[in-house]
Amino acid sequence: MDINFQKSGGLVPAIIQDERTGDVLMLGFMNPESLAETQRTGEVVFFSRSRNKLWKKGESSGHVLRVREMRVDCDADALLVRVEAVGPGVCHEGYRSCFFRAMDADGNTKIISKPAFAPEKVYRKEKF
Amino acid sequence: MDINFQKSGGLVPAIIQDERTGDVLMLGFMNPESLAETQRTGEVVFFSRSRNKLWKKGESSGHVLRVREMRVDCDADALLVRVEAVGPGVCHEGYRSCFFRAMDADGNTKIISKPAFAPEKVYRKEKF
Repeated sequence: MDINFQKSGGLVPAIIQDERTGDVLMLGFMNPESLAETQRTGEVVFFSRSRNKLWKKGESSGHVLRVREMRVDCDADALLVRVEAVGPGVCHEGYRSCFFRAMDADGNTKIISKPAFAPEKVYRKEKF
Repeated sequence: MDINFQKSGGLVPAIIQDERTGDVLMLGFMNPESLAETQRTGEVVFFSRSRNKLWKKGESSGHVLRVREMRVDCDADALLVRVEAVGPGVCHEGYRSCFFRAMDADGNTKIISKPAFAPEKVYRKEKF
């Protein structure tokens, strides 16, 4: 099955889900090379749109995402990666999941998760 | 909190998750207008990139997605919509989830879900 990278400008969105809890941890994008690296290594590699290069998740923090199962949707234009998330959390703000804010119908947000770690102890200063 | 629509060309990816089971059902995109419609009506409205217009999920099938909770990620460039999915499934191919295929490290896919309904009975012919 050929993944359709064209609909998102050479990228495909990849949803990262904790295989054990079912929690959605984050969403990243992959280009063909990062998908191939993910498949080759068994650990998630994204394509960073802001840095315009491959981005191995956990390269600084050690919080790598081990692929347990990869799924593809009906139109082959989105990926669901079910993972074992190594470490206390995936979010650079110190939460288990990047989706730690709820948003109400008026657009107001509220933090609904507890911090999982201290980001300044995990990420090297040059990351910021 | 302002959603960042710029990183995906005026759109934001929206992950749809079954609130009850935790299953990821599908991924769609929203523009500001479809997000506003989703917030106003409490039912998911996407922006269809192929048809270039608002797309109320379930407009043909009746399989609407009732918003139970909306979350936004740390960078405000992805949404997680936790829903009650009305009907047997969200996928136009007749499955509960659009992610009904697993893909191995070589890119080979395998259907891992059971069909949930007969699409030809649910969708009007003009949809295809």
